[in-house]
Amino acid sequence: MPGLINAHCHSGLLRGTAEGLPVWDWLQQFIDPMHRVLRPEEAEAASWLCYAEALLSGTTTIVDMWRYMDGSARAAAELGIRAVLVPYVAEHPDHNYFETLDTNEALIRRWHGEAGGRIQTWVGLEHMFYAVPAAWQRATAITREYGVGLHTHSNESRFDVEETHRRYGLRPVEALEKFGLLDAPRVLLAHGVWLDDREIAILADRGVGVAHNPVSNMKLASGAAPVEKLLVAGVAVGLGSDGEKENNNLDVFEEMKVASLLAKLSSLNAAALDSWSVCRMATATGAQALGLGGETGSLEVGKSADLIAVRTDTPRMTPLVTGSLMNFHHNLVHAVQGGDVDLTMVAGRVLVENGKLQSGDLRSLIDRVNGLAPGLFERRSAWLAAHGTVNALVGSSESI
Amino acid sequence: MPGLINAHCHSGLLRGTAEGLPVWDWLQQFIDPMHRVLRPEEAEAASWLCYAEALLSGTTTIVDMWRYMDGSARAAAELGIRAVLVPYVAEHPDHNYFETLDTNEALIRRWHGEAGGRIQTWVGLEHMFYAVPAAWQRATAITREYGVGLHTHSNESRFDVEETHRRYGLRPVEALEKFGLLDAPRVLLAHGVWLDDREIAILADRGVGVAHNPVSNMKLASGAAPVEKLLVAGVAVGLGSDGEKENNNLDVFEEMKVASLLAKLSSLNAAALDSWSVCRMATATGAQALGLGGETGSLEVGKSADLIAVRTDTPRMTPLVTGSLMNFHHNLVHAVQGGDVDLTMVAGRVLVENGKLQSGDLRSLIDRVNGLAPGLFERRSAWLAAHGTVNALVGSSESI
Repeated sequence: MPGLINAHCHSGLLRGTAEGLPVWDWLQQFIDPMHRVLRPEEAEAASWLCYAEALLSGTTTIVDMWRYMDGSARAAAELGIRAVLVPYVAEHPDHNYFETLDTNEALIRRWHGEAGGRIQTWVGLEHMFYAVPAAWQRATAITREYGVGLHTHSNESRFDVEETHRRYGLRPVEALEKFGLLDAPRVLLAHGVWLDDREIAILADRGVGVAHNPVSNMKLASGAAPVEKLLVAGVAVGLGSDGEKENNNLDVFEEMKVASLLAKLSSLNAAALDSWSVCRMATATGAQALGLGGETGSLEVGKSADLIAVRTDTPRMTPLVTGSLMNFHHNLVHAVQGGDVDLTMVAGRVLVENGKLQSGDLRSLIDRVNGLAPGLFERRSAWLAAHGTVNALVGSSESI
Repeated sequence: MPGLINAHCHSGLLRGTAEGLPVWDWLQQFIDPMHRVLRPEEAEAASWLCYAEALLSGTTTIVDMWRYMDGSARAAAELGIRAVLVPYVAEHPDHNYFETLDTNEALIRRWHGEAGGRIQTWVGLEHMFYAVPAAWQRATAITREYGVGLHTHSNESRFDVEETHRRYGLRPVEALEKFGLLDAPRVLLAHGVWLDDREIAILADRGVGVAHNPVSNMKLASGAAPVEKLLVAGVAVGLGSDGEKENNNLDVFEEMKVASLLAKLSSLNAAALDSWSVCRMATATGAQALGLGGETGSLEVGKSADLIAVRTDTPRMTPLVTGSLMNFHHNLVHAVQGGDVDLTMVAGRVLVENGKLQSGDLRSLIDRVNGLAPGLFERRSAWLAAHGTVNALVGSSESI
């Protein structure tokens, strides 16, 4: 089958260490201070393991928003995954420890279109709150100059909607449109949980894609995105795992299942979001959301050979039935797990075979992350001891 | 770690072939007519594969409600799993094709306490609507005569609550209590989605256990059970996968994750249902819900050696951190999948090693189900062509 598209992810080293807190406290205690002390070699080790995990569970294309992404680009180039690299940019006095539009532009110059076209580099913005208005304009200008996309978080939580309304008197997508952030050649928004009908109409009209992250949206208690409404409106919705700290694995098969479950629960309708729609979100529609529908997402002459083989000799694939009760799509959505992937190929190169990573030494990638993580945690603790938690969620200065 | 307890499951052959319909149509078109044409050899093949799947994903104890369960008992005895076998009993003129209290009692006589005590046989009732009042009394009498438990579905859907109220003017648990069905030595209720505070108090007072089935409850759009309220009230809540047709896999690790996600989403509180509570539900609390807390569910001197080993040399277990950020419980709940189980031991016998089934030939179990399923589907189609769908959900005759 076509390889899976992970339309929203963050490399990271915090798996299982940032748990059980509401979003605000979670950002203040765990995430934001990590960004303040993160080192390039740690960021690179995280990307190597992230892409290895993705390939092993059948993902052939990944959108990664992360830091110090030259390392990420090296990992993607060598491991062989197709990657859209999107730095976590902030251009705001309260967040002067993220990536900047300068480092983002430098990444685009060095890496966009490299590795035989497998690597794309877009402009990334953590959230529109993380940038002053002049930066919004420059972000869009860079996308247009280089012909690349823009990726940001939007409408993840009710707070996002309320705070946008407080600041600008607008819904989040209306604000993105008004401030020019939808004028990039391609825009992909992560989450879209609280989108209303007017916002959905704008997304459809402007050809904006959405990355739906059902596991993350449940785990962080964000809510249930209106996926069926988006699809009916013609918006390309892909599936994202979000990061190791929000999920805590990167298995798009699991995301497919939870997308189906969440749609059914939130509408109290067992017929909501059929299995074919979910399969398409994880493949063709996901590719379309990234503007890569011409290159990947389906097995067609003229597209790249991005494909996976899923074991059928498992209880999870039994019975396997043809005819009017054909069930392989239902099994793929509701029974199969990432570990059932036997082979992963990107651009014709076999990267996973017999369920084992071929393009890298998995054991050494694991050891490297285990070796580096304690130091990162120590420096974060030291930073917190020296500075305390600060308002990390959005720029609190009223300069914006 | 202790082996996992699957507190509610149905063996079956319908994986991925009974999809996308609301519960009522689903029962009429797929499930009920299957029961009418099911043969003993098909039922037995389903149990063999079901228990193999369970062992491979770390389940050491399973509660199985199914048909022709002599075959299930043979499968459990040979494959080595600890099993609570609970026939699908109906004693009602509209459902004269299920198991009966007679066949249930015969099963108890033949199998209760066999396989070195690994096999228990309880009285099973599909639902209280599936039996006339005299059968309720006899069901309880059998449990008391043999000192066994009673397992039934309750409070799965809003329909269940409304129909119980229409018939008896009572909530489902109040009805179970009034009609003597809570007088069994041990009672385990599956689902409990729509329990209210009075019902929770009754369950706590009577020592009734609950099997929570988060994946099934989402997939069939049943709702979100009040798990934290139940735990606070002192009710033993275990985790169940439900059957291959409601889930569609039998992975209790996945159930752990979805239990956490569903609790967080349904309360819009990212701190709801912490990881330790989820781990306990899948092990010690689950065993307690089955009345097996003295034998299994934790690694203690004097209990049976029911344990599993989970691989740590995987991306899903990386980083693995000790100290104040200890994360293995969070990883077990949110990252690990059943396929990460390396070893499964029940009562000191190694049943899975290096991730491979040792106590049976998995390939032949898979082939047998693939060989039998088409015939079952054909006979079901023939039955439907001859009889049409009938009101399958509850006895529609007003004799009850």
